[in-house]
Amino acid sequence: MTKIGIIGSAGRMGQALANAIPDMGGTLVGGIDAGGDPAPLARDADVLVDFSAPSALDATLVAARQAGTPIMIGTTGLTPAHHALIDAAAADIAVLQTGNVSLGVTLLAKLVRQAAATLGPDWDIEIVEMHHRHKVDAPSGTALLLGEAAAAGRGTTLAESRVSDRAGLTGARSEGTIGFASLRGGSVAGDHQVIFAGTGERIEIGHRAEDRAIFARGAITAALWLVGKAPGRYTMDEVLGL
Amino acid sequence: MTKIGIIGSAGRMGQALANAIPDMGGTLVGGIDAGGDPAPLARDADVLVDFSAPSALDATLVAARQAGTPIMIGTTGLTPAHHALIDAAAADIAVLQTGNVSLGVTLLAKLVRQAAATLGPDWDIEIVEMHHRHKVDAPSGTALLLGEAAAAGRGTTLAESRVSDRAGLTGARSEGTIGFASLRGGSVAGDHQVIFAGTGERIEIGHRAEDRAIFARGAITAALWLVGKAPGRYTMDEVLGL
Amino acid sequence: MTKIGIIGSAGRMGQALANAIPDMGGTLVGGIDAGGDPAPLARDADVLVDFSAPSALDATLVAARQAGTPIMIGTTGLTPAHHALIDAAAADIAVLQTGNVSLGVTLLAKLVRQAAATLGPDWDIEIVEMHHRHKVDAPSGTALLLGEAAAAGRGTTLAESRVSDRAGLTGARSEGTIGFASLRGGSVAGDHQVIFAGTGERIEIGHRAEDRAIFARGAITAALWLVGKAPGRYTMDEVLGL
Amino acid sequence: MTKIGIIGSAGRMGQALANAIPDMGGTLVGGIDAGGDPAPLARDADVLVDFSAPSALDATLVAARQAGTPIMIGTTGLTPAHHALIDAAAADIAVLQTGNVSLGVTLLAKLVRQAAATLGPDWDIEIVEMHHRHKVDAPSGTALLLGEAAAAGRGTTLAESRVSDRAGLTGARSEGTIGFASLRGGSVAGDHQVIFAGTGERIEIGHRAEDRAIFARGAITAALWLVGKAPGRYTMDEVLGL
Repeated sequence: MTKIGIIGSAGRMGQALANAIPDMGGTLVGGIDAGGDPAPLARDADVLVDFSAPSALDATLVAARQAGTPIMIGTTGLTPAHHALIDAAAADIAVLQTGNVSLGVTLLAKLVRQAAATLGPDWDIEIVEMHHRHKVDAPSGTALLLGEAAAAGRGTTLAESRVSDRAGLTGARSEGTIGFASLRGGSVAGDHQVIFAGTGERIEIGHRAEDRAIFARGAITAALWLVGKAPGRYTMDEVLGL
Repeated sequence: MTKIGIIGSAGRMGQALANAIPDMGGTLVGGIDAGGDPAPLARDADVLVDFSAPSALDATLVAARQAGTPIMIGTTGLTPAHHALIDAAAADIAVLQTGNVSLGVTLLAKLVRQAAATLGPDWDIEIVEMHHRHKVDAPSGTALLLGEAAAAGRGTTLAESRVSDRAGLTGARSEGTIGFASLRGGSVAGDHQVIFAGTGERIEIGHRAEDRAIFARGAITAALWLVGKAPGRYTMDEVLGL
Repeated sequence: MTKIGIIGSAGRMGQALANAIPDMGGTLVGGIDAGGDPAPLARDADVLVDFSAPSALDATLVAARQAGTPIMIGTTGLTPAHHALIDAAAADIAVLQTGNVSLGVTLLAKLVRQAAATLGPDWDIEIVEMHHRHKVDAPSGTALLLGEAAAAGRGTTLAESRVSDRAGLTGARSEGTIGFASLRGGSVAGDHQVIFAGTGERIEIGHRAEDRAIFARGAITAALWLVGKAPGRYTMDEVLGL
Repeated sequence: MTKIGIIGSAGRMGQALANAIPDMGGTLVGGIDAGGDPAPLARDADVLVDFSAPSALDATLVAARQAGTPIMIGTTGLTPAHHALIDAAAADIAVLQTGNVSLGVTLLAKLVRQAAATLGPDWDIEIVEMHHRHKVDAPSGTALLLGEAAAAGRGTTLAESRVSDRAGLTGARSEGTIGFASLRGGSVAGDHQVIFAGTGERIEIGHRAEDRAIFARGAITAALWLVGKAPGRYTMDEVLGL
C-alpha cells in the first residue's frame, strides 16, 4: 500500500483526499497545514499531495527533495517564481503540477485538440459550461483550458479567438472564433461541452462532474502514478498515457 | 380542401408556405406581393396567411374584412398602430397574429411558465439557445419569449430578472434572475433549452427545430384552425387547445 | 420547528432523512426500526415519515391514528391490503403515500402528461433513462411513471403502448407507441428524458438527479406540508400545488 | 474545377450528390444508372462517385481502370467477392470504399476509439442513437461502427461485448460490456452519442446530423481528395488526415 502524505490536509480538498485514499489502494500516512513541518511527512510518505497555499511551496519542495519523495502539486495561484522552484526540484524528484486534476477533463482536452486540428475552419467552435450558483467567475478555468486546447489544435491561441458574450446586435459569427457561454444555477458540480458546428452536422464533446470527489480521485491517481518515476516534471497527459 | 391565399408569396416564408400546403390538406389558391391587390385573393380564399411587410397590413385587413375571410398574420415589426388595426378587424373576422408560429415552441412556453410557477425561487432558471452562424442578434426572439413565460410564471417580468452575459468576476448568482446564453455556429435551425436548477436536481425543457419548414407548418395549422371561427382575435395557445 | 419522527431510521433513506432535516427547518424528534414501538414516537412527533417495510405498516398506522399525527409513507412493495389500511387511516389523519418523492419528477410527470395531451399522434414519444451500473432492473420505476403520464395524456394506458427494446429488424415505428431505453453505467444517480419527436422538431423534457439526497428532501417537504392538514389521502401533486 | 461523374445518378444519393457538387468546387460532368455505359463517363471525369448497386461494380471498375480515373465507392451490400474486385482495381487507380461517408462520424469514431483506449474498464460504455420513425433496423449502422471503434480501443471486439437491450430484471451491469439503445421518432436525420460513465464523472461524445445532405458532402470531399492520389485503397480516416 502506497503511503500518501497530504500538504494542506485541513482544507476542503485535503479532506476529500483523505476520504478517497482508502478506496484507491493507498494509505494516508499523515498531513500538515500552515506552520507544520513538512520534513517528517516527506520522509514517512511514498508520495506527497499538495493542495495548500503558494507561500508554503518552497519549504515543501525543500523537504521533498531532501527525502527524495515525489510530489503531486494541485495548489493554484502559482507565479513564474513558483514554477521556477518546481523546475529546480524536478532535477531531483518526480513532480507533477497541474491546475486540472480531473482525468476526464484531461482526456477531453486531448479529444478537443484533435477534433479542432482535424476539422477545418468551416466548423465553428462553441464552449458552454454550467456550475452551481455560488461560483463567482466565468468562464470556468476548465472551459478556458478546453478553449486553449481547441485553439492549439487550430494552430492559434485563445487570446486571438475568444468571444465571451453575445448579447444585442452581434452581427454574424466571425470565422475562427471560439465562443464561450457560462450558465450558473443550483448545485451543479461542473458540466462542460465543446460543440463543433459544421454545415448540416455537429460534433459535441462533453464532460459531466457528478461531484467534486472526482478531483480528489484524479489527484490520488496521479500521485500513485508518480511513485517510482525518475526525477522530472510530468503532466496529467502522461498519467493517462496520452 | 381549404383554399389558402398567401400575402407575401415571394418571400422566403411565402415559398415555404407554398411548399408545405399540399401535405397539410390545403390548396394554394393564390398569392400576392408588394403592390398586388389583396381583394380578389381575399374573396377566393377560405383563409389568408400574411408574411409580408407592416406597410401592407392596412390594405390586407380591409380586403379580408370586406370578403369576410379570416387571416393568420405572421408579419414581424408591427407597431401599436398596426395592433390597433388588427383589433378593429377582429370585430368582423377571425384573426390570429403571432411572432411565433412554431407549435412546439408554443407548447414549450406553456410548460416553462407552469414549471416556473410551481418551482420556488430555490430553482435557478437559465435559458440557452443555439442558432446558425449567420444570425445577427442575440438572444433569439424565441429565447426571450421563453424568458417572458418563465418570468410570468414567477409573477414578475423579464425586464426585472434578465441577465444576458456572464464573463469575468460576476460574483455569485442573484436569486430570481433568469440567465441567457447564446451559441452560434454551423447551420443550426434553432435549439432552445430552459434549465431549472435546484439543489441536487435539474429540470430541462427544450426544443430542437430541425429545419425552418416547421414555421410554415405551424402557420398553416393555425390558418386551417381559423376557418369557421367567430370574429375575434385568437392566439397560438388556442390553436393547440392550451 | 416541526418535529419529525422517522419510521425506518437505520435504513439508507432513514439516514438520508436525518441528515437533511436540519437544513429544511425541521427537528428530528426520534426514530425507530424493526421491533420498535411507534406509539411514543407518534405522540412526540408533529409528523411521521415512514421508509420501513410493509410488514410494519399496520402498527405504524395504528399509532399515528391514536396520536392524531399525520404521516408521509414512502415504503415500497405495498399490496392492495396495505392500501386499504392507508385509506382507513386517512379517515382520521392526513396521509400521503407515494412511490416517487422527488419534487422535480412530480412536476416532470405533470408536464409530460400535458405535452402528450396537447400534441397529436404525429409526435412520437420516447423515454430514455440512465442509472448507475449497480441497478438491477429496467426501465426504472420513474421512467414507467413518466410513461404512464404520457399514456394518460393521450387517453390510453402504458400497457397498450409500451415498446421496451429495439434490436434487429424492428420495422418502422408504430403510431401511438411509447418507446423506452435504459442506459446503465458509472455512478449516475438518475437521469430521465422524455422526447416528443414531430416532423421537423422535437420537444425534450428531462430531469437529472445529482444525488439521492433529493429524495430525502422531497419526503421532508411533503411531511412538512402535511402538518395541519385535514384528515384525508394526499398526493405529491398537491404538495407542489399542481 | 474537378469534373465528377456519378454512378447511380437517379437514386436518392445520386440526386443529393448532384445538388451538393456546385457548392463544393466541383462540376458534375455526367451520370449513369442501371444499364448505362460507364466507359465514356470514366474518361470524361476526373473522379467517379458510385452509389449504385453491387451488380454494377465490376463494369464500373473496369471502366475506371481503363480510364485511369479514381473512384469513391459508397455502394452498400458488398460481398467479399466485391472487395476482391476493389483490391484488384486499387493496383491501377486510387479507390476509397466506405459504408460511412460522414466526415463527422469518421472523426467521432476516432475519438471514441482513443477515449476507450485511454479510460480503464472502470468507465462503462453506452451508445444511444435516434433516427426517424421510418427506420426499420436497430441499432443503426453508425452506432455499430462506433461500438466497433470502442471495442477496438479496448482491445476486444463488439461481438464479445455488445448488450443490445435492457428490459426486466437485468441484474447489475457486467464490466466490459458496451450497451446500445435505439430511439425512433419524428424526422430525426440521425443522432449518435457515446457515453463513458466513470465513478462521479461522464464523458459524452456525440454527433448530430441535421439533414442527409452531409453524406453527399462527405462523399464529394472524399472524391475531390482522391484526385491525383497514387493507386491504392484509401480510407475516410486518410481523407481527414487522421
